[in-house]
Amino acid sequence: MKGLWLENQQLQLKSDLPIPEPNKDEALVKVLQAGICNTDLELLRGYYPYQGILGHEFVGVVEQGPENLINQRVVGEINAVCGHCRFCRGNSPSHCENRSVLGIVNRNGAFADYLTLPVNNLHRVPDSVSNDVATFTEPLAAALEIQQQISIDSTQRVLVVGDGKLGQLVAQTLALTGCDLWVIGRHREKLANLAARGIQTALETDIKERSFDIAVECTGNPQGFGFARRSLYPRGILVLKSTYAGKLTLDASALVVDEITVIGSRCGPFAPALKLLEQGQVNVKPLIQGRYSLEEGIKAFETAQKRGILKVLVEINH
Amino acid sequence: MKGLWLENQQLQLKSDLPIPEPNKDEALVKVLQAGICNTDLELLRGYYPYQGILGHEFVGVVEQGPENLINQRVVGEINAVCGHCRFCRGNSPSHCENRSVLGIVNRNGAFADYLTLPVNNLHRVPDSVSNDVATFTEPLAAALEIQQQISIDSTQRVLVVGDGKLGQLVAQTLALTGCDLWVIGRHREKLANLAARGIQTALETDIKERSFDIAVECTGNPQGFGFARRSLYPRGILVLKSTYAGKLTLDASALVVDEITVIGSRCGPFAPALKLLEQGQVNVKPLIQGRYSLEEGIKAFETAQKRGILKVLVEINH
Repeated sequence: MKGLWLENQQLQLKSDLPIPEPNKDEALVKVLQAGICNTDLELLRGYYPYQGILGHEFVGVVEQGPENLINQRVVGEINAVCGHCRFCRGNSPSHCENRSVLGIVNRNGAFADYLTLPVNNLHRVPDSVSNDVATFTEPLAAALEIQQQISIDSTQRVLVVGDGKLGQLVAQTLALTGCDLWVIGRHREKLANLAARGIQTALETDIKERSFDIAVECTGNPQGFGFARRSLYPRGILVLKSTYAGKLTLDASALVVDEITVIGSRCGPFAPALKLLEQGQVNVKPLIQGRYSLEEGIKAFETAQKRGILKVLVEINH
Repeated sequence: MKGLWLENQQLQLKSDLPIPEPNKDEALVKVLQAGICNTDLELLRGYYPYQGILGHEFVGVVEQGPENLINQRVVGEINAVCGHCRFCRGNSPSHCENRSVLGIVNRNGAFADYLTLPVNNLHRVPDSVSNDVATFTEPLAAALEIQQQISIDSTQRVLVVGDGKLGQLVAQTLALTGCDLWVIGRHREKLANLAARGIQTALETDIKERSFDIAVECTGNPQGFGFARRSLYPRGILVLKSTYAGKLTLDASALVVDEITVIGSRCGPFAPALKLLEQGQVNVKPLIQGRYSLEEGIKAFETAQKRGILKVLVEINH
């Protein structure tokens, strides 16, 4: 089969990859379409030494697996877990200490004709949800993780820092809480996407320091972190939603004096993400800014790496 | 009056300082005794550009103020607040944006014959609590702040990193929650203080990584932070209890992947601190390792700066 293979920070299209064989708890999924995420770009830059097929945002069709899933369209949670370690038995299976992660850690990913995942990771896609929309389930679930970690209500002032693809999804989910939401970014046209949905937007320079209860950092760069930090009231909460390629240097004393909470946030719940997509509560279509075949995969990544580009999709078995 | 005056990172004993005049909401307090805190040492090193009389841990006697407090022994909360800013009206008066802070920000401190504080900041010291013990009210309150911020119960494994004066108080308060508490440090004799109270202690090298729900960083150095970080389970909580003289560099991606919470923690509640001291639930006496007159104040600070020294007291109007 064909697939986009990462090795030594080099991405190449291979056409002689073996079709993976699912083990007894897994399904074989024919990939219909997959999306390029910032984490893929960070892996290319060497943020984590992964070797294998990239990709973890996908929609596909089950070809081998339990009867009730055969020929069904599915999306899949990316952490394949052992089920018996202390974190699986506890309340944090996504932190399984023996996990593999689709297209990220020890498990071939979605930019290929086929992938395998544990059957338990799969969620049927409602008929009314298109392939384009379903491809956003994984990043939308990650956005919803924030609300699994902290409660956000209509009395709070919340700032999303970053108008990129993650910021766009985070902002749309937070808007549903009724909080006093602002999104800041550097791109007027991206902010306009959000303004069109009634979300308050601003350029960085227009935001007053010390005026938010919660700030969600969606840029993955130290400037974004610094801005999010300064925007907070004392006792505010800074949610780190992006991975960073380098180290971050901060003023720890200021965190102590202002009693700031910093909380890292990663993968989230698929079921509510699918529900929001089915209900049309989140509009992902304006985020799609590129569309390539698997054969054009290298070009797809070149486009995704351009400044200011939102989501690039790779159509695989279309 | 006499006092220890800090200016340009130089400490000097002055004997011609004016006795402060309390305004209408303040009391004049004759200082009996004051303790040297790490924050005083950080101020000496230039962590914050303060100029004035140092000191914020004290016990004193009210000389001018409301009738019911005259001649009473008191301790005092260190944040003098405006009462009408957004943080005072909200739930965070200790974060008042117009505050002065005793011996730290825009308000002369306790290493002097007299100080003034708002009457609302003062707490009567129960007769059974000695001056030595009462001097620990402020740092003990700071230790109790942790439990105002996060709930700690008997099911949790909690690590205190650091066996210094702050670590000793934090450990003793956390031990009262019934949690599975460990304290790590580098000084066998200091750990022995805690072991004598039934608290589990270990040297750094004996602690397994990823094995605690909560870690409280009480060293104020980057090594302590790194150790606390590594000790945590995924989704663990790292409480920052110390100020840092420099910047801190950390792996933000690891905070995201492991969904770690970092929470800064500063001043805490005086009433429960005084209650614990009155009940003898916290034993502060083994922490006292030096005792000087105000005239010997410079020497007191020299002793406090020595590696491994716990609390140094300055006896003022004894």
